[in-house]
Amino acid sequence: MCRSAVYPGTFDPVTYGHIDLIKRAKVLFPDLRVVVAKSILKRPLFSLLERMKMLRKATEDIEDLIIESFDGLIVDYCHRNKIRIIIRGLRMLSDFEYEFQMALTNRKLLGDIETLFLMPQETYAYLSSNLLKEIASLGGDLSAFVPPFVEKALKDKLKNK
Amino acid sequence: MCRSAVYPGTFDPVTYGHIDLIKRAKVLFPDLRVVVAKSILKRPLFSLLERMKMLRKATEDIEDLIIESFDGLIVDYCHRNKIRIIIRGLRMLSDFEYEFQMALTNRKLLGDIETLFLMPQETYAYLSSNLLKEIASLGGDLSAFVPPFVEKALKDKLKNK
Amino acid sequence: MCRSAVYPGTFDPVTYGHIDLIKRAKVLFPDLRVVVAKSILKRPLFSLLERMKMLRKATEDIEDLIIESFDGLIVDYCHRNKIRIIIRGLRMLSDFEYEFQMALTNRKLLGDIETLFLMPQETYAYLSSNLLKEIASLGGDLSAFVPPFVEKALKDKLKNK
Amino acid sequence: MCRSAVYPGTFDPVTYGHIDLIKRAKVLFPDLRVVVAKSILKRPLFSLLERMKMLRKATEDIEDLIIESFDGLIVDYCHRNKIRIIIRGLRMLSDFEYEFQMALTNRKLLGDIETLFLMPQETYAYLSSNLLKEIASLGGDLSAFVPPFVEKALKDKLKNK
Amino acid sequence: MCRSAVYPGTFDPVTYGHIDLIKRAKVLFPDLRVVVAKSILKRPLFSLLERMKMLRKATEDIEDLIIESFDGLIVDYCHRNKIRIIIRGLRMLSDFEYEFQMALTNRKLLGDIETLFLMPQETYAYLSSNLLKEIASLGGDLSAFVPPFVEKALKDKLKNK
Amino acid sequence: MCRSAVYPGTFDPVTYGHIDLIKRAKVLFPDLRVVVAKSILKRPLFSLLERMKMLRKATEDIEDLIIESFDGLIVDYCHRNKIRIIIRGLRMLSDFEYEFQMALTNRKLLGDIETLFLMPQETYAYLSSNLLKEIASLGGDLSAFVPPFVEKALKDKLKNK
Repeated sequence: MCRSAVYPGTFDPVTYGHIDLIKRAKVLFPDLRVVVAKSILKRPLFSLLERMKMLRKATEDIEDLIIESFDGLIVDYCHRNKIRIIIRGLRMLSDFEYEFQMALTNRKLLGDIETLFLMPQETYAYLSSNLLKEIASLGGDLSAFVPPFVEKALKDKLKNK
Repeated sequence: MCRSAVYPGTFDPVTYGHIDLIKRAKVLFPDLRVVVAKSILKRPLFSLLERMKMLRKATEDIEDLIIESFDGLIVDYCHRNKIRIIIRGLRMLSDFEYEFQMALTNRKLLGDIETLFLMPQETYAYLSSNLLKEIASLGGDLSAFVPPFVEKALKDKLKNK
Repeated sequence: MCRSAVYPGTFDPVTYGHIDLIKRAKVLFPDLRVVVAKSILKRPLFSLLERMKMLRKATEDIEDLIIESFDGLIVDYCHRNKIRIIIRGLRMLSDFEYEFQMALTNRKLLGDIETLFLMPQETYAYLSSNLLKEIASLGGDLSAFVPPFVEKALKDKLKNK
Repeated sequence: MCRSAVYPGTFDPVTYGHIDLIKRAKVLFPDLRVVVAKSILKRPLFSLLERMKMLRKATEDIEDLIIESFDGLIVDYCHRNKIRIIIRGLRMLSDFEYEFQMALTNRKLLGDIETLFLMPQETYAYLSSNLLKEIASLGGDLSAFVPPFVEKALKDKLKNK
Repeated sequence: MCRSAVYPGTFDPVTYGHIDLIKRAKVLFPDLRVVVAKSILKRPLFSLLERMKMLRKATEDIEDLIIESFDGLIVDYCHRNKIRIIIRGLRMLSDFEYEFQMALTNRKLLGDIETLFLMPQETYAYLSSNLLKEIASLGGDLSAFVPPFVEKALKDKLKNK
Repeated sequence: MCRSAVYPGTFDPVTYGHIDLIKRAKVLFPDLRVVVAKSILKRPLFSLLERMKMLRKATEDIEDLIIESFDGLIVDYCHRNKIRIIIRGLRMLSDFEYEFQMALTNRKLLGDIETLFLMPQETYAYLSSNLLKEIASLGGDLSAFVPPFVEKALKDKLKNK
């Protein structure tokens, strides 16, 4: 049972920071499920399908990785799939705040689920999806932050807005 | 004079965290006034009337509690009512930041008014109104966070959006 | 070369905090350029022209100050103008987070540019542009925070919204 | 009853920040008691008597101010004196952490006592007693931070160490 | 392999916060080893033997729990025992800082070891071992924070100092 | 004049983080002076002479670097040498707190001196001198954090304690 864990997120879009975390978590929890949340309230830039497709392509060299979408509470997903561990990356300060709230709220919603926080590689510790969108909108080079095909998709999407 | 204090907020909607704070403040300042701010810039989910009504119902067992609405600067409300103490809850880190700014700004606007910060019960220390809305929109159980009638109102409101 | 530095920002609108920082930076870096970013993603209240005009008026007593607008990455501006120093104010906690991300991202985008952080006078350490807009919308007195003509412009702008 | 409050501290030595806070608290709570903790574990530089004496001299222009020493838990002091409000200054981040722990611990020790946090004037928001001692030991000018007689006592004390 | 994890600490002395964390971690990682560090640099109040003994007694109702001492780097312990997961509790802000440093340093020392952070129950989120010692030295009641026999040991130890 | 800056510190001992910062600052301020503070209150592990010697050796490939010791307030050093810029590294959160206090205190001590904060390379963003000493005392490998001769000196020093 301790082989299973869920790594939920919006992945709007997937970054090298996410990929680093998935690789680290996969070693520890062989039955890792990456779950893409619909996240309507966050008004994602990419559709759920686009986010799933990019995430799949970016992780295609990781064997046996399960990628799924889910429209609901992540604790419900865990409950249905009998998984007790939620993995979250912990970057810097503001993260901590939000993640702390989320983890305690999830625990209150379903008592036997624990959130485990994992540190990304320090070169990704400051990667912010909002900053990426800002740089992309100004035509900056994103090759240090996301795979080439994600950079292209991000710039195409922002051009059409 | 030290019997009087104002506890301002948006209360969108009222939570058990707010109610806990009101009860604590009421013991210390018998002439406590809970003031609901119109808060147009924050684009509240509920109307001012709805927020007032829910707050009244949620605190109906607290005797002699004054609940009012106000559309303006809270320091002006204090000045008009000759009240020198503003009560605010202090939950976690990000709060502190915003509350610090607000308290120093209010002091600059009207020098003889002080903001006193009070800690909520630790089980409510991470309650975030935004997280509540997210959980409600995903159909989660809010019974640990808000009174039943507020949970119903929140889910009805989000359904009709 | 070390005489040159760039102080970029949105300046929506300029505050006494910005002016304090410009004066401090100008003493250290005689060839200081204040660069107003278009910042479409931040949805500024004032147009780029309005922000430039207010900034110019608010700093007219500072000799030889260069004020320019730029629509692109600030590191590109630095590269074109052979400037290696970006100046940023560091107010309080949340700032630090965002500025940390920005500085490390800019360094990754263009390796030989450094961000230097400068502290504003402590009386401006909590000045938040969002709080100013909130106070202005409620008719509060802004004379301690912005020049009189900025206060008037801010209130006019918010009235017409 | 709401007229009474306790402001506990080590006051090693008293600074303009403490005096500012005492004045603000005295206006709100006319029956304010400043309680000097023995604080053996903190290994204060000045003896309890010296700290009391300096505090008395520094506040001699504040009428009806009660200054006492106490060797025990502050909640016990409150309980014996039937006081329900503890006042604490809240300066910056690290404070918050420690004060948060202290307030919740005190509440657990005695449930009907509340800690109210008050912001000092922003010019004192960064005053640190340790930094003061460092500056004093290097012969720096402390006139902006402590009364002249405290500066003299601090330098004499550090010379004799 | 994912069944194994190490929970290292000084445990000076063990608190209900530690016990809560051990119970949570034990469910997720059945082969959990609690490792008591000698920690000479931290100058613990209790000897290694005393800390081990109290920890054993406090967790005697948890079946199959391995408690060991270790005098060295925790990554070396992991390496020798072929364990890849270090568990740490994450309480509040200052923790995060130190734990972040420690986790990244450990990763640099031995690349294939990950630190997973777990949140304690929120009622223990502010428990500080230093605050406990302060309260104990002043004769306060510790029954909400540590088991009765630990309270007795702590008070005896502080009396004899 | 803007060519000159001071980078003060205790350097107990010098780390790759310090060296990284010195190199970055030297490019921006050709007349950079690294000033080693005696720092008696911090009880350094190495003597002033040892710290100077290690710093000199670790930076011998940086041309024209001035390294001096100073026993007094850094603002006095600046004043005597007509330097207006103090450079400080800004690593993570707790730094910010202390550096903020220090910078504002220095400004109050001597008004025309500014502290400029520079970010170290992100791989050094969590390097803590205390953590290094802890690892060294436990026989850990420090080759990623300090030059080999510093690692040897640190381990020799700790062995003889």
